[in-house]
Amino acid sequence: MVSVLIGLGDGFEEIEAFAAIDILRRAKFNVTIAGVTETVTSARDITIRCDCTLDEALGRSFDAVAFPGGMGQAKAIHTSAPARALAEKALSRDKVLAGICATPGVALAPWGVMRGRKATCYPGCEGTFAAGGVEYVTETVVVDRTQGKGTLVTSRGPGTAMAWAYAVVSAIEGSEAHADQLKKGMLF
Amino acid sequence: MVSVLIGLGDGFEEIEAFAAIDILRRAKFNVTIAGVTETVTSARDITIRCDCTLDEALGRSFDAVAFPGGMGQAKAIHTSAPARALAEKALSRDKVLAGICATPGVALAPWGVMRGRKATCYPGCEGTFAAGGVEYVTETVVVDRTQGKGTLVTSRGPGTAMAWAYAVVSAIEGSEAHADQLKKGMLF
Repeated sequence: MVSVLIGLGDGFEEIEAFAAIDILRRAKFNVTIAGVTETVTSARDITIRCDCTLDEALGRSFDAVAFPGGMGQAKAIHTSAPARALAEKALSRDKVLAGICATPGVALAPWGVMRGRKATCYPGCEGTFAAGGVEYVTETVVVDRTQGKGTLVTSRGPGTAMAWAYAVVSAIEGSEAHADQLKKGMLF
Repeated sequence: MVSVLIGLGDGFEEIEAFAAIDILRRAKFNVTIAGVTETVTSARDITIRCDCTLDEALGRSFDAVAFPGGMGQAKAIHTSAPARALAEKALSRDKVLAGICATPGVALAPWGVMRGRKATCYPGCEGTFAAGGVEYVTETVVVDRTQGKGTLVTSRGPGTAMAWAYAVVSAIEGSEAHADQLKKGMLF
């Protein structure tokens, strides 16, 4: 069964997080919500209990590791050692690493995991891209597949969250057929 | 301060619920999440603690009452006496009643609260519309304003959830300016 980790910290953007959880679970993937802490609270005060902590998820392998955005979330993910280890492991094993909104600029680029790759993020959060060796692209969703080094799926904000989640489904499966079927059922 | 009630039961559709909560809180409205029970679990297993129960919200007045969709949610809302009372009160006081996805067809039309009005819902859930005296329209979002009888804001599914939430903002404020500003910031 396809396994996906969604990493969350306090301040996560609701639409980005729940669009990913919703769509990846509709795809029949085994989705683990892993928090910086056991419970996390969104930017606008929704508290959820995670399936486990990022630390507890460290020993497991995932077909995709996805980090929703939100400024608080992006900072919390950036300073999480297990989040970084999970991101690095995903790419080194040729899996998918996905980020959206503030996360690619505030969390991922400063780790150096996107060096030499193309990516996007929320406009204004791309200031770290140059130093992190990342080429900033202003498309809705940017998919950078580098054979042997994994696939990066980045996107821009709440309004692009569903497109981002469908792109993660397609990146994992290597086909857009399933995502297209999900889009139809969800009136996307 | 503008007050909005979002009514949730088990089986609620995540994107529809959290897009509404996110966008209406970004609009600086006082958003109360009222559950059929104190905690509710979404269609794909996200459990949240509500701000109060629908029963506890009964004595209060709201500028808008919104019910996200999901089949379990729609059935739970339909059989909730306080949910029905809150919906009827909103319309009788010329406020906003909003529903999306399965909810207009499964919960609202059978209550009779949309009689003589135009509305939409998830394709296939409109079977109750004729008996409920509702004209089924296939637009993304349908806003039916009847002076003195409130405004109905209905929509179709997860892919139309953000458009639905922005339409609720505009229906409350009688202007699209604020919603347009929110759309821009959220890259919608």
